[in-house]
Amino acid sequence: MSNVNKVVLAYSGGLDTSVILKWLQDTYQCEIVTFTADIGQGEELEPAREKAKKFGVKEIYIDDLKEEFVRDFVFPMFRANTVYEGEYLLGTSIARPLIAKRLIEIARETGGDAISHGATGKGNDQVRFELGAYALNPEIKIIAPWREWDLLSREKLLAYAERHGIPVEMKHKQGGSPYSMDANLLHISYEGRHLENPAAEAEEDMWRWTVSPEKAPDQAEYLDIEYANGDPVALNGKPMKAAELLAELNRLGGKHGIGRLDLVENRYVGMKSRGCYETPGGTIMLKGHRAIESITLDREVAHLKDDLMPRYASLIYNGYWWAPERKALQVLIDHTQAHVNGWVRMKLYKGNVIVVGRDSKTDSLFDANIATFEDDAGAYNQADAGGFIKLNALRMRIAAKAGRK
Amino acid sequence: MSNVNKVVLAYSGGLDTSVILKWLQDTYQCEIVTFTADIGQGEELEPAREKAKKFGVKEIYIDDLKEEFVRDFVFPMFRANTVYEGEYLLGTSIARPLIAKRLIEIARETGGDAISHGATGKGNDQVRFELGAYALNPEIKIIAPWREWDLLSREKLLAYAERHGIPVEMKHKQGGSPYSMDANLLHISYEGRHLENPAAEAEEDMWRWTVSPEKAPDQAEYLDIEYANGDPVALNGKPMKAAELLAELNRLGGKHGIGRLDLVENRYVGMKSRGCYETPGGTIMLKGHRAIESITLDREVAHLKDDLMPRYASLIYNGYWWAPERKALQVLIDHTQAHVNGWVRMKLYKGNVIVVGRDSKTDSLFDANIATFEDDAGAYNQADAGGFIKLNALRMRIAAKAGRK
Amino acid sequence: MSNVNKVVLAYSGGLDTSVILKWLQDTYQCEIVTFTADIGQGEELEPAREKAKKFGVKEIYIDDLKEEFVRDFVFPMFRANTVYEGEYLLGTSIARPLIAKRLIEIARETGGDAISHGATGKGNDQVRFELGAYALNPEIKIIAPWREWDLLSREKLLAYAERHGIPVEMKHKQGGSPYSMDANLLHISYEGRHLENPAAEAEEDMWRWTVSPEKAPDQAEYLDIEYANGDPVALNGKPMKAAELLAELNRLGGKHGIGRLDLVENRYVGMKSRGCYETPGGTIMLKGHRAIESITLDREVAHLKDDLMPRYASLIYNGYWWAPERKALQVLIDHTQAHVNGWVRMKLYKGNVIVVGRDSKTDSLFDANIATFEDDAGAYNQADAGGFIKLNALRMRIAAKAGRK
Amino acid sequence: MSNVNKVVLAYSGGLDTSVILKWLQDTYQCEIVTFTADIGQGEELEPAREKAKKFGVKEIYIDDLKEEFVRDFVFPMFRANTVYEGEYLLGTSIARPLIAKRLIEIARETGGDAISHGATGKGNDQVRFELGAYALNPEIKIIAPWREWDLLSREKLLAYAERHGIPVEMKHKQGGSPYSMDANLLHISYEGRHLENPAAEAEEDMWRWTVSPEKAPDQAEYLDIEYANGDPVALNGKPMKAAELLAELNRLGGKHGIGRLDLVENRYVGMKSRGCYETPGGTIMLKGHRAIESITLDREVAHLKDDLMPRYASLIYNGYWWAPERKALQVLIDHTQAHVNGWVRMKLYKGNVIVVGRDSKTDSLFDANIATFEDDAGAYNQADAGGFIKLNALRMRIAAKAGRK
Repeated sequence: MSNVNKVVLAYSGGLDTSVILKWLQDTYQCEIVTFTADIGQGEELEPAREKAKKFGVKEIYIDDLKEEFVRDFVFPMFRANTVYEGEYLLGTSIARPLIAKRLIEIARETGGDAISHGATGKGNDQVRFELGAYALNPEIKIIAPWREWDLLSREKLLAYAERHGIPVEMKHKQGGSPYSMDANLLHISYEGRHLENPAAEAEEDMWRWTVSPEKAPDQAEYLDIEYANGDPVALNGKPMKAAELLAELNRLGGKHGIGRLDLVENRYVGMKSRGCYETPGGTIMLKGHRAIESITLDREVAHLKDDLMPRYASLIYNGYWWAPERKALQVLIDHTQAHVNGWVRMKLYKGNVIVVGRDSKTDSLFDANIATFEDDAGAYNQADAGGFIKLNALRMRIAAKAGRK
Repeated sequence: MSNVNKVVLAYSGGLDTSVILKWLQDTYQCEIVTFTADIGQGEELEPAREKAKKFGVKEIYIDDLKEEFVRDFVFPMFRANTVYEGEYLLGTSIARPLIAKRLIEIARETGGDAISHGATGKGNDQVRFELGAYALNPEIKIIAPWREWDLLSREKLLAYAERHGIPVEMKHKQGGSPYSMDANLLHISYEGRHLENPAAEAEEDMWRWTVSPEKAPDQAEYLDIEYANGDPVALNGKPMKAAELLAELNRLGGKHGIGRLDLVENRYVGMKSRGCYETPGGTIMLKGHRAIESITLDREVAHLKDDLMPRYASLIYNGYWWAPERKALQVLIDHTQAHVNGWVRMKLYKGNVIVVGRDSKTDSLFDANIATFEDDAGAYNQADAGGFIKLNALRMRIAAKAGRK
Repeated sequence: MSNVNKVVLAYSGGLDTSVILKWLQDTYQCEIVTFTADIGQGEELEPAREKAKKFGVKEIYIDDLKEEFVRDFVFPMFRANTVYEGEYLLGTSIARPLIAKRLIEIARETGGDAISHGATGKGNDQVRFELGAYALNPEIKIIAPWREWDLLSREKLLAYAERHGIPVEMKHKQGGSPYSMDANLLHISYEGRHLENPAAEAEEDMWRWTVSPEKAPDQAEYLDIEYANGDPVALNGKPMKAAELLAELNRLGGKHGIGRLDLVENRYVGMKSRGCYETPGGTIMLKGHRAIESITLDREVAHLKDDLMPRYASLIYNGYWWAPERKALQVLIDHTQAHVNGWVRMKLYKGNVIVVGRDSKTDSLFDANIATFEDDAGAYNQADAGGFIKLNALRMRIAAKAGRK
Repeated sequence: MSNVNKVVLAYSGGLDTSVILKWLQDTYQCEIVTFTADIGQGEELEPAREKAKKFGVKEIYIDDLKEEFVRDFVFPMFRANTVYEGEYLLGTSIARPLIAKRLIEIARETGGDAISHGATGKGNDQVRFELGAYALNPEIKIIAPWREWDLLSREKLLAYAERHGIPVEMKHKQGGSPYSMDANLLHISYEGRHLENPAAEAEEDMWRWTVSPEKAPDQAEYLDIEYANGDPVALNGKPMKAAELLAELNRLGGKHGIGRLDLVENRYVGMKSRGCYETPGGTIMLKGHRAIESITLDREVAHLKDDLMPRYASLIYNGYWWAPERKALQVLIDHTQAHVNGWVRMKLYKGNVIVVGRDSKTDSLFDANIATFEDDAGAYNQADAGGFIKLNALRMRIAAKAGRK
């Protein structure tokens, strides 16, 4: 057992991290600093303080990170139109680097020499926490109890809790939530249990943030988003800060049944896993961002971004937010957003996000005079197309003459 | 004016290509072969025969290409999860290479030395037709009347028609359809006129193939698609040939308001253009294919495909179906589909295509025993994750030790 | 013939551009501004002034652009380790954007409404000049005489020259140089004539800048290059400005027979073409830059650069220096160079550039303690490799268990 | 200690693997099968048989894999012009998958349930052996003694050997070779000791396969290589099988001082490492293959290959030969080679491989009539270039008009 003096623990106040807190105290005989973050998961944080105090924790951090989370992590990611494996909006992945950063900052502030988290040994989150932590402090020690201890079953965990006087809520005694969940301002996710059969439909009562499309209003709702440098800055004409804006989009999307996803994805640690996600605001943002880019980005810049996007998405999914290659890509992506200004109008209706209009007073590259079917005035001379095609065809004609098929 | 003896004309029987037919006869003093294809556009073809006869055309080809179109063009494209600029399913693009191929075949059969088409000089379709034609016959002459003649306005075209006794339907006299449309079994598209302002919402009565989500049934409908080697082969247990299957998906999608798209896209010839599309069956197929791949494809193979997809999509959009680089990519894509067998269940509801289950008896790589949260038996040892993370972090730790930020 | 008032001509003072000058005056009845640039081609520029005066040109620009050329074009390109089609160092390509920029600047200064150049209609240079010019001034008119006039053979050109009193040097009368050449501080190129048979070896007396390896000194010479932010800044301890440094590398490389290349390349306009190149200094720079990056760049950043390099190279080869996608890539590339500081030692010997040592006091990521075979102290624990391999193998093990081959 | 019955050991007969053999017998109390392969490393294999017998090994495999190695591993890799990090020809990497395959085959033949190898815990080779083994047999057990035992220093290893009566040659007692070496028909590599300072030049007497350029013949030698489907099949008109051909290229290259490389590379396990390599035949093959492709491959196919090459190279370097994504890429690469037929002429001289000519009777796409500067007959009309440039410039002109810089 490595020699550890003070551990900063990512502490939710829930059963699992409470057991970890106690287990760390017993096993490592070390001081614990708890860190609880509000990233929009929608839970009271003060109970975490009370619980930590009961364990004798003296240094307790409770931070509201919502604005930082959306402004410095969610928005930069959405500038790239990021989607993992064609579908997943990376709601869990994007929150981990921020937690890693705060754990390392708090370790420095408190003189901690180790950090700890409650992620299991089979998932992606352990990788995301730890890659971030190592990148930010190469000397940090990391304790991942799920990879160390022998409390791998639910029963053992509960037994440990009871043995050590850790309060266990009724729901846990009754088997707990049937899902492993994670929530933040961008999304809520469900994994495990009933979902482990990818052939079976998820149960309707699992979903928490969105109504079903069936129960969404019969009346569509229009929404205008204004963009500045690729980020949404106002809804229906009302300027908002990042976290407030995303919260409002979540409200609207949730009301209209938008942003549910049922997916089998490939984890970085090598297995396939089935997850269900609700990302109401993010689903709207992705559509909107593509729409504003469609009139403001140069074609080849847009295609370059599309070509790089899967790589960027994998970097975030795999936990490389703090890696130099992610930063290099971000520099390129951010550079392209200088002209992504304007507005997009969408219609929200029973699960649908329908773009119906987009414009940019300052940065539109759409030129109706050139695109029109009607005449040939101005910059475009239809005869040019003949030469364009001829030269683009030349290599294929030479090959065909040479007998290639 | 180049010396031309016999021209094979892609002839729809409509006003524009009828004017072209007459114009070719007059201008080039050459024989005309008409070629009219049924690729599922949903129009009667026999009138085209009658009209061609009236122009004195002796060689008239009317082909049903629906099965070939879906089997050899649409399905291979969907194996790649192809989407242009994040949204567009390439409904128009994918039909052009087939038309080009038939034009060249008919030219060979009839001794024609030229082909002609009705695509304008500002669009992508001229490029697609002509790149395909040149690739398949490097000596072919190509006549693109819209790039040559002086009938560039609607008025001039109508005047020419009346002057030459070409029947003009009432709708044309009244200004014609407000849109430029293109249809085949995969989609119907709308461009021009009212759509040339990308800020304005498309009018509801424009859409032809789908009901609006609002008017779709209040009752969701479940659909099972069975896949073999990456292609859909049965719906709800009923085996179908390619064209029949896509037609049925169109019917289902159209009924449920699925597959509308309103987009500003970047044309190969250099301008932005606003198009609206209905691709009901294709929208369902894309979702379904990704879902069956999610449990049958290896992660890195799937990511390789994702990385190459935008390039493949651009090749098809730009008209390079018959180019050697498209064929090389297709060889890779098709190779990956050998294991893409199984079924996907979806729920269709008011514009939504919701994947609710997927499985493969023969080829699933989903292993619930490994993914489970519950235990650590078998192939996965949680302790391995520590070393995995440590070595993946090593380069970043070395950099951090060296003072990099 | 388009209406043109004043044309800025890229004027070398040689026969071809002198004929163009006269032809422009006669054909367009317009005023001519000549622009002659010293980009290190190694020719006297004052004769161009005299010749231009004789044609009655009143506005004559003769600019020394060597420092700007190397600093703002050559060096940024080498930061990317740019090589086209695995071999070509882009010596011609990288000079064209600078000429295009100056042509447009001079047009603005002199009130010119058109530019003209002497590139033929079959090559890449016309594309590079004109794409650059259009990107910098979308209203500019461009006159490419080789695409317009009927002087397409050598004989006709000479006849025109004699007819109009343009002095023709003896060498031209005798058939001229057997090669089409282009030179600047980065390279000299040869195309055409004797080289049009790619099976035949180039003649030894063609090469101008380098001795043959056989005639190079029998004694090797060591060279130290110091890098700052990815650019070479000193040779053998002596700080130099960009142009001076490249000139000195050319001298050293030329002396040691370094940098010859005989290549068949693919032109942007669609055909294959055989070219021979001498790039002595550039060949040394490429080797040196890769070597300094090898100890200062993070692995994944280096691989990202390698993945993007062919695309970046094609952009430059095809003339897209001034395009937004090239700029976006440059932003990424330049960002990665902040740590590329240190020195590289090379041995120059009869055509070989042999890297023998490299180090960086401030930015080395090479850590002998970790790489050593001898022990296991510090950051690296050999046992970690087991977990690393196990998880990387997991997806393949699952597939093998499922019967995949 | 996992339960193991019979271990197949990759056995060279040298000191390290002899110690491993003994250590496995003692530690695991299991039966050992030795496997010794001739992949062209240039050592006697029969002594390995004698030594294995002395340890009581009953099942001894000694295989000549040279032809399979070159034909099925080296040649497929060279079809892709594979180079890792711009320089390294992957000589070690490409041999490991074959060894892994034979280990698994022999385990199956002999009823072995484990394999073992002598690669250390800090290098790439452990990864390559083990990823291959797991991919081919997901149930195999793998013993990597260097990651398990406590013999991590040279002294401990020697002490163990003497203690167990393992013969130690004089060179080992005197400190052994100063380098860690690996050899096969493609290359010989050197790492460690004196090379661990990347600033210091490698000693001349380290190199074993090539003379120094200085000592190479003063007379150049010409060499013709004939290619079929992308593979070399004859030298100077003499057909040869794969292994014979590569051996002859090694002889020629070694004689002329060709193929030395001194490199700092990035290992998959996360650290930088300095290696020196001699790859005489491979260096010639790479140059030759690019040359024959230059006249036979379509431009866009060649560029697609160039874009994918770094990824393919990383896969091989990292040990993913047997992974499905490598196979998918190989399918694409092999498909492109159908037309790569013809010959290349090179000049070998004091470290230089100079391509001087190339041709293909059946598959050349080089068309001198099109490329010529002289006239405009045939397929190419110079006027087409105007339209080509205009449309390629259009998006940039629109942007410039809109005020973009």
